[in-house]
Amino acid sequence: MPQYRSPVDDTLFILNDVLGLQGRSNLSGFAEATPDVVEAVLREGAKLADEILAPVNQAGDREGCKRHPDGRVTTPPGFKAAYDAYAGGGWMGLSVPEEYGGQGLPQVLNIAIQDFANGANLALSMYPGLTQGAIAALLVHGSEEQKARYVPKMVEGTWTGTMNLTEPHCGTDLGLLRTKAVPRGDGSYAITGTKIFISAGEHDLSENIVHLVIARIEGAPAGTKGISLFLVPKVLVNEDGSLGARNGVTCGSIEHKMGIHGNATCVMNYDGATGWLVGEANRGLNAMFVMMNEARLAVGVQGLGQSEVAYQNAVAYAKDRLQGRALTGAKAPDKAADPIIVHPDVRRTLMQIRAFNEAARALVLWTALQGDILHRAEDTKERQAADDLMGLMTPVVKGVLTDRGFANAVEAQQMLGGHGYVEEWGMSQFVRDARIAMIYEGANGIQAMDLIGRKLPKDGGRAMMAFLGEIQGFLKEAGEDEAMAPFAKPLQVATGDLQQATMWLMQNAFADPDNAGAGATDYMHLLGLVALGYMWCRIARAAQARKAEGRDTARWEAKLVTGRFFMERTLPETALRLVRIKAGSQTTMALEAEAF
Amino acid sequence: MPQYRSPVDDTLFILNDVLGLQGRSNLSGFAEATPDVVEAVLREGAKLADEILAPVNQAGDREGCKRHPDGRVTTPPGFKAAYDAYAGGGWMGLSVPEEYGGQGLPQVLNIAIQDFANGANLALSMYPGLTQGAIAALLVHGSEEQKARYVPKMVEGTWTGTMNLTEPHCGTDLGLLRTKAVPRGDGSYAITGTKIFISAGEHDLSENIVHLVIARIEGAPAGTKGISLFLVPKVLVNEDGSLGARNGVTCGSIEHKMGIHGNATCVMNYDGATGWLVGEANRGLNAMFVMMNEARLAVGVQGLGQSEVAYQNAVAYAKDRLQGRALTGAKAPDKAADPIIVHPDVRRTLMQIRAFNEAARALVLWTALQGDILHRAEDTKERQAADDLMGLMTPVVKGVLTDRGFANAVEAQQMLGGHGYVEEWGMSQFVRDARIAMIYEGANGIQAMDLIGRKLPKDGGRAMMAFLGEIQGFLKEAGEDEAMAPFAKPLQVATGDLQQATMWLMQNAFADPDNAGAGATDYMHLLGLVALGYMWCRIARAAQARKAEGRDTARWEAKLVTGRFFMERTLPETALRLVRIKAGSQTTMALEAEAF
Repeated sequence: MPQYRSPVDDTLFILNDVLGLQGRSNLSGFAEATPDVVEAVLREGAKLADEILAPVNQAGDREGCKRHPDGRVTTPPGFKAAYDAYAGGGWMGLSVPEEYGGQGLPQVLNIAIQDFANGANLALSMYPGLTQGAIAALLVHGSEEQKARYVPKMVEGTWTGTMNLTEPHCGTDLGLLRTKAVPRGDGSYAITGTKIFISAGEHDLSENIVHLVIARIEGAPAGTKGISLFLVPKVLVNEDGSLGARNGVTCGSIEHKMGIHGNATCVMNYDGATGWLVGEANRGLNAMFVMMNEARLAVGVQGLGQSEVAYQNAVAYAKDRLQGRALTGAKAPDKAADPIIVHPDVRRTLMQIRAFNEAARALVLWTALQGDILHRAEDTKERQAADDLMGLMTPVVKGVLTDRGFANAVEAQQMLGGHGYVEEWGMSQFVRDARIAMIYEGANGIQAMDLIGRKLPKDGGRAMMAFLGEIQGFLKEAGEDEAMAPFAKPLQVATGDLQQATMWLMQNAFADPDNAGAGATDYMHLLGLVALGYMWCRIARAAQARKAEGRDTARWEAKLVTGRFFMERTLPETALRLVRIKAGSQTTMALEAEAF
Repeated sequence: MPQYRSPVDDTLFILNDVLGLQGRSNLSGFAEATPDVVEAVLREGAKLADEILAPVNQAGDREGCKRHPDGRVTTPPGFKAAYDAYAGGGWMGLSVPEEYGGQGLPQVLNIAIQDFANGANLALSMYPGLTQGAIAALLVHGSEEQKARYVPKMVEGTWTGTMNLTEPHCGTDLGLLRTKAVPRGDGSYAITGTKIFISAGEHDLSENIVHLVIARIEGAPAGTKGISLFLVPKVLVNEDGSLGARNGVTCGSIEHKMGIHGNATCVMNYDGATGWLVGEANRGLNAMFVMMNEARLAVGVQGLGQSEVAYQNAVAYAKDRLQGRALTGAKAPDKAADPIIVHPDVRRTLMQIRAFNEAARALVLWTALQGDILHRAEDTKERQAADDLMGLMTPVVKGVLTDRGFANAVEAQQMLGGHGYVEEWGMSQFVRDARIAMIYEGANGIQAMDLIGRKLPKDGGRAMMAFLGEIQGFLKEAGEDEAMAPFAKPLQVATGDLQQATMWLMQNAFADPDNAGAGATDYMHLLGLVALGYMWCRIARAAQARKAEGRDTARWEAKLVTGRFFMERTLPETALRLVRIKAGSQTTMALEAEAF
């Protein structure tokens, strides 16, 4: 059976040494996150992930969810108990304000726990993950009554949440939405329509499911300006908070998918179901965007999680499997053959994944920290700067971490040869599960368009200028440190590529917006590479400081070697991305559709 | 249901215009391959693929193979009828000499048909594919009696073939082999051992299965020098050619795999089974290599096939799915939204796959043609040159076409968004099926090591020098043609990268072989890119000639645009590969195994 261990020590190092969590006590909730508390939270979260969630992952894939003729959906064996442990441990509300039953701790800690849980069991972690997204939307846009009535139960995990956007004819382009809401005159609406691809839309883990549904109020404007957000519980809630009658929403079928078999992907039929408006009428997309930004960061973390678990299992196999001899002479002469980890091509693969994972973890936590600053800082300027950086980096974390996370899972699978292709060994599941993260919450091409069309030009490019400024500041400081040269110099080069690409886009996208579109994905990856390279620089600086303390020297040496591998072999890809962007849209767009 | 159309016209163009098949009548069997015959063969093959093989592909994935308690294995519904059509149409023996019941046509035609069949139904095509590999090994290494007894039945398809190499503890490193062969004194051997991952090891498509099995004759030297090849029929064959008693070989179980569910991957138990030596004792690997080279080229074609079918379905979806508006203004203002093919990021993806497929098809056929020259030319020098080029390009075709073929299937799947993840649409199957091609017949890392450790240094680098010489000759000629500049110039740059990489390896691999190992995969891809770029140059020249004739101008324009896309956006990756190679092995190999 595949194995998994949450990367607790690496996460602690990033939080404490790289991001300096302890210097952030100006942020509300951070003073409570003392070093002891942070470590205890991570170690407990790891226990949940490693001992409760991971062991039911493979059976979850094999058994999958089942829809019964009466519309009920049952989750795989062991999922209910594991979910109860998740909810019962208070994990759902880790960073939810205490007034709603949460613990008010930093969101960055919550994201660290999500990373652990995703690596352990993606399909299962989606149930609480979606619930957290729904909680976030309600906390920002819900009425006081909605918050009081629904959020505590969701924080407990007694009720779960979903988001309902997609319809058969309308995925990315929500303006085409048809689900309609008819006011009933008593403050409620009758919701009617069909939603598809609804993750966790129906299941047996919770007593109630709080669906957040976008729909068009009768007579609302066409397009995205006529979309409203509604709260539609599976079971209606009585005045006293107890459960009442079943609402008019049912699961029509579940999809047979490539992966995440343990999570029910539902067709949801709304047949005059009772719903309540969340936030203002016709402003539903804004409310949904809150949920989507949370969700996009979380999905990026899913990419990382699958990359990590696949890596761990590839390493275990590479140390164990005896095959061939090292090119430089036998390393285990007493055995029939050397373990395959001696082979440079195996090493290259493992180093590549590892070097990505460690930087990606830092990037995810760095981005989550911007979210904390945005929501918890006193200072307006500080909040705005964090908002800028988080907005800029959200599509990058989502797009790049899931693209690479999937590619890494594939590479890790390759290390097992034929065994990687056989389901028994678990690698195929990591690949199949990782695949969804590139698609949902806005396919990665959409992330690239969000980056280039919205985030980059916003406020005259303020976010990108701030990001480049932060890197330049770091490089200036690091420039005086000879030991940092193997990190700082490649980052300087890569940042130059990013600047050139940004300039080219500014000059050429105006004349022809297709020039931006044709380069969008390359630009997203270019920015992702620079961000990861920047993280490696910060990691290297922190590792050098720790190494100088003279303890655990091998650990810090390994960090620095891994970082140099990234700078030498992964980061130079920025040049290729720049070449592609500068190629423009001519050959991309030249053919008539009929020529395809 | 997914759709598929064999790329007949493109294949005809490559064979006739790019490779000049009609100028090769000095090769035996080529004179018979007149333009009419070639076109008729391809159109008939396409009919088989499109109308017989493709329609049962999805059900094959869904139903899979089943092993019954008595050891029998049944293939999915429809497979037997489709296989009978394949065999009955004479396709198995298309390029087998007429004396064994074949048609003696060029192997390059056979490979073209395999391309069609793989795109239509990979799992099914493997049954005849493995049979063709076994036929090839028997024709080269079998005794006259073995050839006469077994090959005609295999050409008919009444009997099928397999290759049995892998054992539980021994995949790549065949020296660890334990299956043993004990001489019985009557010319036969008793074969005992367990083989795993045996594709088509047991099934219900043919009356008999001819297993080619490597084993160690009792008392043979340890390692690879003590390996012999045996022919072990599932059912023993009587003197008169009729079927006799069941042999001591059984299928112990079948694997549950990520894909190719329609092909049975078997654990084969040999329990004193009767076998006969093929070729010389202790020279089994040599005999097996014949089969493996054929098989590796065929597996490269599988990568291309999945890339092609995935592309076709992504195109169909992109033309049909309405979502959003073009960045440059509505293209279908009468509809609710534009078809997504108007979006540059969708275009970029489709162009990328298409530009790969068209060049990969040319490369596959070019390599197969080298095989024809090797086996059919009169002139020794011509044969040797073809042998060199085929040897050099076989690992590249296998490794690069399957890596990229899989990646392309993933990109094509992405075009369908959530529908791509749902099995109903078929894209997931293309991805899951394509994945195996990177693994079997020597995992791609092994292909890279074969290239760099064996093919490149062989005969003082003669093959690479010949390949570079051929490109330089082409470039010199093309240099005088201004219209060829958008193709010739990028190829010149890429070839420079290849030369630098080759030089670097020569200078640094001797001092430390890990420098070669750490760069092997990048080198394989670098050579692959140059080879594909060279193919695009040849395609472009042929397309320009056709365009000048003034007919089908749009078709030839589309070719040239697609080629320029490749030169601008795909080929520049050579520079990144070179950077990685030159990084050497230091950071790759620095960590102790315990540090992972």
